[in-house]
Formats: sequence, C-alpha cells, structure tokens
Amino acid sequence: MTLTAEKTNVEQQAIDAKKAAKTLSMLSTEDKNEALHTVASVLEAEYETILQANEKDLNKGREKGYDEAFMDRLSLSKERIYEFAQGLREVADLEDPTGLVKSDWNLENGLNVQQVTVPLGVIGMIYEARPNVTVDATGLALKSGNAIVLKGGSSALSSNQVIVEVMHRGLEKTKIPKDAVQFIASTDRSATQELFTMKEHIDVLIPRGGGSLIQAVVNNATVPVLETGVGNCHIYIDKAADVEKALNILVNAKTDRPAVCNAAETVIIHKEWLDANKDQLIATFNEHDITPHGDEYAVSILPGAIPAGEEDWANEYLSKHIAVKTVTDVTEAVEHIETYGTKHSEAIVTEDHTAAKTFLGLVDAAAVYHNASTRFTDGSALGFGAEIGISTQKLHARGPMGLPALTTVKYQMTGTGQIR
Amino acid sequence: MTLTAEKTNVEQQAIDAKKAAKTLSMLSTEDKNEALHTVASVLEAEYETILQANEKDLNKGREKGYDEAFMDRLSLSKERIYEFAQGLREVADLEDPTGLVKSDWNLENGLNVQQVTVPLGVIGMIYEARPNVTVDATGLALKSGNAIVLKGGSSALSSNQVIVEVMHRGLEKTKIPKDAVQFIASTDRSATQELFTMKEHIDVLIPRGGGSLIQAVVNNATVPVLETGVGNCHIYIDKAADVEKALNILVNAKTDRPAVCNAAETVIIHKEWLDANKDQLIATFNEHDITPHGDEYAVSILPGAIPAGEEDWANEYLSKHIAVKTVTDVTEAVEHIETYGTKHSEAIVTEDHTAAKTFLGLVDAAAVYHNASTRFTDGSALGFGAEIGISTQKLHARGPMGLPALTTVKYQMTGTGQIR
Repeated sequence: MTLTAEKTNVEQQAIDAKKAAKTLSMLSTEDKNEALHTVASVLEAEYETILQANEKDLNKGREKGYDEAFMDRLSLSKERIYEFAQGLREVADLEDPTGLVKSDWNLENGLNVQQVTVPLGVIGMIYEARPNVTVDATGLALKSGNAIVLKGGSSALSSNQVIVEVMHRGLEKTKIPKDAVQFIASTDRSATQELFTMKEHIDVLIPRGGGSLIQAVVNNATVPVLETGVGNCHIYIDKAADVEKALNILVNAKTDRPAVCNAAETVIIHKEWLDANKDQLIATFNEHDITPHGDEYAVSILPGAIPAGEEDWANEYLSKHIAVKTVTDVTEAVEHIETYGTKHSEAIVTEDHTAAKTFLGLVDAAAVYHNASTRFTDGSALGFGAEIGISTQKLHARGPMGLPALTTVKYQMTGTGQIR
Repeated sequence: MTLTAEKTNVEQQAIDAKKAAKTLSMLSTEDKNEALHTVASVLEAEYETILQANEKDLNKGREKGYDEAFMDRLSLSKERIYEFAQGLREVADLEDPTGLVKSDWNLENGLNVQQVTVPLGVIGMIYEARPNVTVDATGLALKSGNAIVLKGGSSALSSNQVIVEVMHRGLEKTKIPKDAVQFIASTDRSATQELFTMKEHIDVLIPRGGGSLIQAVVNNATVPVLETGVGNCHIYIDKAADVEKALNILVNAKTDRPAVCNAAETVIIHKEWLDANKDQLIATFNEHDITPHGDEYAVSILPGAIPAGEEDWANEYLSKHIAVKTVTDVTEAVEHIETYGTKHSEAIVTEDHTAAKTFLGLVDAAAVYHNASTRFTDGSALGFGAEIGISTQKLHARGPMGLPALTTVKYQMTGTGQIR
C-alpha cells in the first residue's frame, strides 16, 4: 500500500485490506495478541517520529486559527503516545470475540449445526480530528480479526499517516499482514465517497465525529453503517422526584464533561416540581455556571433564562448551556423525547415506580435510566474494556460497542452426506 | 388508515404505525397471542371474501399472460387460507422474543444494568407476488411487538388488500391497535421510494423477492435494511470427495426445489475427481435431467455441456441447469465462491479434514457445509419455527431469521441517584 496522496487508489487499498482480512481471520488469538504487543512497543520506540508529524498538523492548525479545544484534541505528547500503546496492550488482554460457539445442536438426521462468531471482514472507519482513534480503532479491529481502512480528518493528516507507518513497521514483525491496516491519505471528498459504496470490499462503515459527518455517511452509504454517537440526551425530573437526587444527577449529567455524547442537553421538568423547588434549582444553575434556555413557563420562573426555540430542543449544546422544557406529566416528557431525542441516553428522576416503568418502557433509546446520570452510557463505565463507539441505531449493536460488535456469526454445518 | 389508492398517504400510515407500535410494545405476551388467535379465526371465517379478491388478481394475471409458476404462487384456496391461519397460531406458540433479560449486573456503585430485548418498532416489508407473506410477516411482526407497513407487489394487490382488511376486522376485537398493520395500496413506485427514506418512522426495511427488488432497496434506502435471500450457492466436490455423498448432495441441492434460494447453482469440481468419476457424474446429470453449463475443461468432459460465461457464474438459474467450474485445489474453489457467491450457503464434499477446515474457515457466507446439502439453510429445517427471511448480510442477523431478528436491545439502568 502507498501512503502518498498522489498514488492513493482507494479501491486497491480496500481490495488489499480484504485479502489481508482472510489471512488475519485464520490467525490464533495468541498471534493477534503478540502482534498488538509488538505494535505497542514500536509506537513507544518511535514516539519522536510521531511527535514530529504531529507538530506539522499543529502548525497548520495554528495557521488556520483552530480553537483551543480543537488544538488540544489534536495535540500529542510522549505520554499520550505511551497511552495509545498501553491501550493496545489492554485490548490484547480482552477476550477474543471470534471463534465462540454461540449454539451447537444436531438435527434428527445427525447434521451438526454450530453458530460460531467470526470477524466482520473489513471495517471502514471515518473519523475526525483525534489521532488516538487511529490507534484505538486499529487495535479493536485487529483483535477481532478484522482489517481496517482508516479515513481520518485532514487536520490530523500527518499525525495519522505517520502513526499508520509506524504501526506498519510493527506489523512487519508479526503474523498480521500490514495490508490489514490501510490509511486513506487523500484529502479529497471523493475518496471518502468511494468508501460509501464499496460494498464488495468493505463490510461495515463506522463514522465517528460530529453530527454532520455521521449524517453524511448514513445518507450516502450503501455499505452498512454502524451509526454512532450524537447524543441529545434528556433528564426528566418528575413530579415525584427527590430534590437532592434530581439536582445531583442534573449537575453531573450537564457539567461533568459537557462536550461528550452522554451529557444532558435538555432538562424536562414537571411544573409542580419546578414550582416547589425553583429556588434550589436557580441556586444550582448559578453555583455550577449553567445557562438555562427555557420554554415560556421556564423563562417565567428562571431569572435570566433565554427563550428556547426549535434549535435548542433539537441540538446538542456540548457546553454548560441547557434547555429547560416544562411538562405536566410523564407522557408529555416521553413525547418531547420522541420528537427531539437521538435514541442515545434518557433519564427519569422519580420516586414513583409507575412513572419510572412508563418512562423506561416507552422511551426508545439505547439506554434508559431511573434515578441515575446519563453519563454511564460508556464502554469503560460499564466495564466493557475498550469501545469502538456508542451505537444509536437499533440493528446489530445498540449502546456502547465493545469487541463483539465487530463480529458476525456463521452457521457451520458438519455432516456425513445429509440431504433434505 | 385507508386502503384506497386515492387516499393513500404513505407518511401518515407510517406515523400511525409508529404510534400503534408504542401501544403494542407494552402489551403482554398473552394479549399478543390472543390477538393472533383471533386474527386466525377471522381469516378462516372470511376466506370467501379473500378468494373473491384473489380471483380479481388471477384474472388480471391471466390477461397479462403470467406463466404458470407465477400464477401458482398468486393463487389462493380455502386450504391455503386455513394454512395462513394455522401459521399465525404456530407463531403464537413460539417464545416471545421481547422482554428477555440478556444480561444483568451491578456496577460497584450499585447501579443495576440490564440489557433487555425490545421490539425494533416499525418494520417495512417490501415483497413480491406471494400473498402468504402478508399474513406470515404480520404474524411475526405482531408477536415480536412490532408494527408493520406492508408494500406488496401490484399483481397481488386485491388479495393483499382484502387480507389486510380481514386482519383489521380481527384486530378490532383485540388489544392490538389495527393501525399496527398498514398496507400501502398505491402501486406507484414513488410510494415504495417514500418508504426507503422514512428513517423517522420506520426502523427497518425487509425486502423479500427477486434480486432486482432487493438491490433496489439496498441501493436506495437510508432506512437500515435486512438484506435477504438471493442465493447463488455452490457445491465444491473436492479431490477427496466420497462419490456417493458427492452425487447425492449435488442432486439434492440442485433438484429438490430448484427455484429456492438455498438450491445449488454451480458445482465446482476438482479436476482429478472429475477425471476419475466422469461416467457416474454424466449418468447422474442424465438421470435427473440436469443441464450442465461448463468451463472449457468441463465442456471437454461432459457431453452436451453448454459453454459457460460470466452470466452462468454470476446468476441463479432457479431451474435444473447447473454451472460446472473445474479447479485444481480448494483455494481456487474458495476464490471462485469469493468472486461469484452471494454469501448465502456454500458446501464442500470431501473426506479430507484439512480441506474442509480451510473451506469452512475461508468461505464468507451465512452457512458453510461439510458433507451436507445446502438445502438445510432454512428456518423450518433448523427448527426455528417461522422465518422472516434468510439474511445474506453480516450485521444484526445472518442466515435464517426467526423472531429474535425482529428485536433489538435496550440498556435499562436502575439507580438510587448514582452520578459519575
């Protein structure tokens, strides 16, 4: 494979990946783990090369005037690269998700039927600025026996490209063919679009990044997509909510890490609860620097609240702003979530078990919570080890996706000449 | 909902279905089973109404000069309608695939995490001539707590429409809202296309029918698709194949039901085996009326064989024709399947366990067989009860799909105020 933009031939890279996936799919768990450890060591040994490439991206970023948060995501250090390597070792320690016999039975005629987990094949990863995805996604793909075609954002091009070159030098010392990791160096939009329709060579596309990236993939790809990430999450504070629990959960879900997908973006509040607890709510917003945007009733109660419109209900703030919607019952809360939610994580705070049951049953989302913060929708919080993303779709995988999401099944039938 | 073409409003029907799906998702297994039994009885009671509608379709079909096989698939009888009803009762007897707790654990902080199976929501079923799909798919959808939007072929329009009207009269006596079953009566292509992109209201599309229907859905839908059915299946007769097993399997896979998707379309034969057993193979083809199309080597051996081209390798005959490809080892067989197979069902006949292991490992298909006929890739043959189709994709479900394929999971978290 080639890494220079001039020679990039996306289709050839995908074909090479598919061929390598065959070899990879037949390797033992030990061979794959050994390879991950080798790549980890080489990443550590060559950290300076990676930092040099990263410097190029950072310079370009400074020229373009990217904001601090963006530059921070882009920026690497010796410590961060060592963390990438450590991540690969942790993936090596996880259970191999392939080769597991999920069911095994004999038909009356003696035909043995086994349903066995196998790799998906070739994963197409389309992602934005963070160079850590390059390493993390590669580790998860290889461990689960999949080849990967990486298409990162142009702002991290040099970093990603050199990380892949370094990983290739590692793979050359292992049984995993280096073609199992392909990096699309072209920054052309057409290169990405080629990936969208390459059904013959790519088994699944996983977009990771902002909403517009994800929508572009979902709307244009004929390759099946694992849709991840956008979380317009709600906390519903019911009439029967405990005040302390409600405020703790609200503050945690809004302010712990406002920019992540499992952070809360709207709080839906029962009007009676709001009337009874407005002073404490206002004090909480003040204390934690939370800016409310509200519907008419909320604005009438909360000093300084900004009138909320369609945009406030529909979008993620990813900051310490929050939309406040007032309702008169749990059904109205469920309907609001139905209209504006992104099927990620939704919580109810209440001591009324009937209301909780209604909410958990009717809200259509990957994760529904009763009296807890939405922040737990996360592979590491749930104990999955690494995570390839959080699925907000219903097919194949839903919620935080660990290694098993990168596998499919195959029926293996062993007979002695059985016919039907 | 309305059934007349003039008033059809596909989007409104999908919205109605989604609303009904909410009610349906909260019903008990008993309520759903009772509804299926009621609908079954009403179908039986009103069989004459259905036969009258079917007569209209048959008349139109005769005018259009459809062939016998097509007319046979379209044609209903009292017995067939009673079979539909019986099918619904059998679905009622199957285990409810929803509400199953797939995993259940507590985090260290006490937060209880349950992964529970839930309905997908609204299923869009796009299918061709057979009116039985109208009843079968409805039964499977309702049992698994899903609403269904049915878009049948225009040749069975009257039959399908009246079957749905009859089922609606049945549902009116049950707790399942009749809006949970929607029939798109418009024969406009645009009505089908509307379904393709209705992501907000439809959770999954399932196309059932010929290859061109399935491709149209896969290539144009932004709603996730469960791809079913096209089976360009191969039998590979290895150098070390037992002659009797090989010929039995070949005959069964080709001739038992040539028009179904798990029938064999190409036999790949090791040249040495062919040389050694050509007389028996020729006799078998003659005895069972099988017409071979072959590559150059096959044509030189098999009298009367038609030279095969790209089309023979790539397409299903769905008749007693078969393509014969000769190879010199198992790898070449695997490569041929890689190029032309549709990831459905692939078999090797051999007494060589290494060759079998290579084949089962490397061939990428829903079902791989060693010494057995591909005809076993079928829900009823495998004991799944009813089947919504056979998935040839890798995500979500692969191979014969029973009721569990119509569900997804939801994380239900129950806490006492946990924050992160």
